[in-house]
Amino acid sequence: MSTLPTKDLFFNLVRNLQNSICEGLENFEPEAKFIEDTWERPGGGGGWSRVLSGGKTFEKAGVNVSKVFGDLPEVLRDSVPEDTTSFFATGVSLVIHPVNPMVPTTHANYRYFEVTNDAGEVVDQWFGGGADLTPYYFYQNDAQHFHLALKEACDKHDEEFYPNYKVWCDKYFYNAHRKEHRGIGGIFFDHLRPTQKHSVEALMDFMLDAGNSFLNAYVPIVARRINLPYTPEQKEWQEIRRGRYVEFNLIHDRGTIFGLKTGGRIESILMSLPPTVRWEYNHHPEGGTPEAELVEVLKHPKNWLEYVS
Amino acid sequence: MSTLPTKDLFFNLVRNLQNSICEGLENFEPEAKFIEDTWERPGGGGGWSRVLSGGKTFEKAGVNVSKVFGDLPEVLRDSVPEDTTSFFATGVSLVIHPVNPMVPTTHANYRYFEVTNDAGEVVDQWFGGGADLTPYYFYQNDAQHFHLALKEACDKHDEEFYPNYKVWCDKYFYNAHRKEHRGIGGIFFDHLRPTQKHSVEALMDFMLDAGNSFLNAYVPIVARRINLPYTPEQKEWQEIRRGRYVEFNLIHDRGTIFGLKTGGRIESILMSLPPTVRWEYNHHPEGGTPEAELVEVLKHPKNWLEYVS
Repeated sequence: MSTLPTKDLFFNLVRNLQNSICEGLENFEPEAKFIEDTWERPGGGGGWSRVLSGGKTFEKAGVNVSKVFGDLPEVLRDSVPEDTTSFFATGVSLVIHPVNPMVPTTHANYRYFEVTNDAGEVVDQWFGGGADLTPYYFYQNDAQHFHLALKEACDKHDEEFYPNYKVWCDKYFYNAHRKEHRGIGGIFFDHLRPTQKHSVEALMDFMLDAGNSFLNAYVPIVARRINLPYTPEQKEWQEIRRGRYVEFNLIHDRGTIFGLKTGGRIESILMSLPPTVRWEYNHHPEGGTPEAELVEVLKHPKNWLEYVS
Repeated sequence: MSTLPTKDLFFNLVRNLQNSICEGLENFEPEAKFIEDTWERPGGGGGWSRVLSGGKTFEKAGVNVSKVFGDLPEVLRDSVPEDTTSFFATGVSLVIHPVNPMVPTTHANYRYFEVTNDAGEVVDQWFGGGADLTPYYFYQNDAQHFHLALKEACDKHDEEFYPNYKVWCDKYFYNAHRKEHRGIGGIFFDHLRPTQKHSVEALMDFMLDAGNSFLNAYVPIVARRINLPYTPEQKEWQEIRRGRYVEFNLIHDRGTIFGLKTGGRIESILMSLPPTVRWEYNHHPEGGTPEAELVEVLKHPKNWLEYVS
């Protein structure tokens, strides 16, 4: 039995995940490598940001770990128990922007949060995270593969996890001002607290399986799309859609806003933004095209696994 | 003497401004023209959006007029008198993104707002607006020329306007998360109400002069920079800086957020976003370069007219 506190165990978990995910992605790169930058947070803690830029497969990929702690920031005061004096948060967060528009963008995040009182006792603790896929061209078998990999990781721990977190994901990654979803979803959850049903150790096991499912969910999709040919017009479409990604992250994403408000490192928080982006006035794809098909899919989330045995 | 109500007079003023500004900008274009789209707001009113795309001088330019009115939106409830039941807002808003990185981006906005009670009486009314300049390469004489043109328009009406509105502009167009200003400023003001000192007619005259000063402030700068040569690296720098423009507009700009919350037309509100944009991880220009000089200027707003007679 380990005697390390949950926060240290989870920090080790996300650092290991960071290593395995970076290795898994570097397998697609003949030359480009992740570069690690470390940073310190003035009030306590810091981070390990890994970024790969200008790769053959990945135009920009970031896999960041942070561990931040200290006095409770004022912006969190209303969402924690009254006797809270300090907070601790650690997690891994990644965003992958591929070169080829046939390869989807993906994002994942696995995090742990705890708050303590004056005596150093944990007064609340929870896990959060998820993974989601943002294609530029829609392939139903990619959507099914991605969701199935996440569902299998969830089902090992609780059969209610996947159905709940799938719907939560569709709700969260929604560009309300465009009336469309950011991508074709995945899972998203927050405030997952230990209960009689799931001990903190059981939740940690779930987080490990969920984190490990990421490469299984994403890598096969990259492998089967990476060599598809594409035109300059298809690349432009990718850049226009990347604009929607920026809009979501800067207007709606609570994670981004939390980071900016709690003194996170700007360059690590905004690492999620795509490398090249395009805004064209009033751009709408012509009906019947693959571009129009994608927009339709993003307006109506589906249960991708309904017809999968 | 005109007998038209203020709201109609001001609407005519901004439609005329839209015409003269579009003409003034089209003079730089051998072929590209502004295209007008009209739109209707479900609760009342609508707009006339004019966009020029892919020009020789202007990569994307939008000059929009809107006139919206109807039942008071819930988001405005706390900022108007208690007996308010309806609102009316009209204005012109423009953003110009030039092709050549030596030509600055500019933005201007002139608007009128009034709220009425059940009896249709105006219970509050105010003007707002301003103009500001966002260079990618810093030319002191451009900054001085732009500010001087605005100051002259202000001084005709009140010598306190320019100094106050210059400082207000520096404060408003601030990317707090980057600790830098969006550009080299201009003027910005809001809630400018009629008083004993300035009647509503006097304020309308000021708005007209301020609006008319825009072309005087911007056109000579375009004319002297438009034929400067530039490298692909300088174009990339422009696209990186355009990323900061997007960050300001989506994270901090109250105008954008107001538009999104009151049911404005998405494509007209987000017309302000630049055509091509770039985010590079942790990009910092080398010391001593023109790029580093610009960043220094944006960190420390100056009184550009201090040494101008």
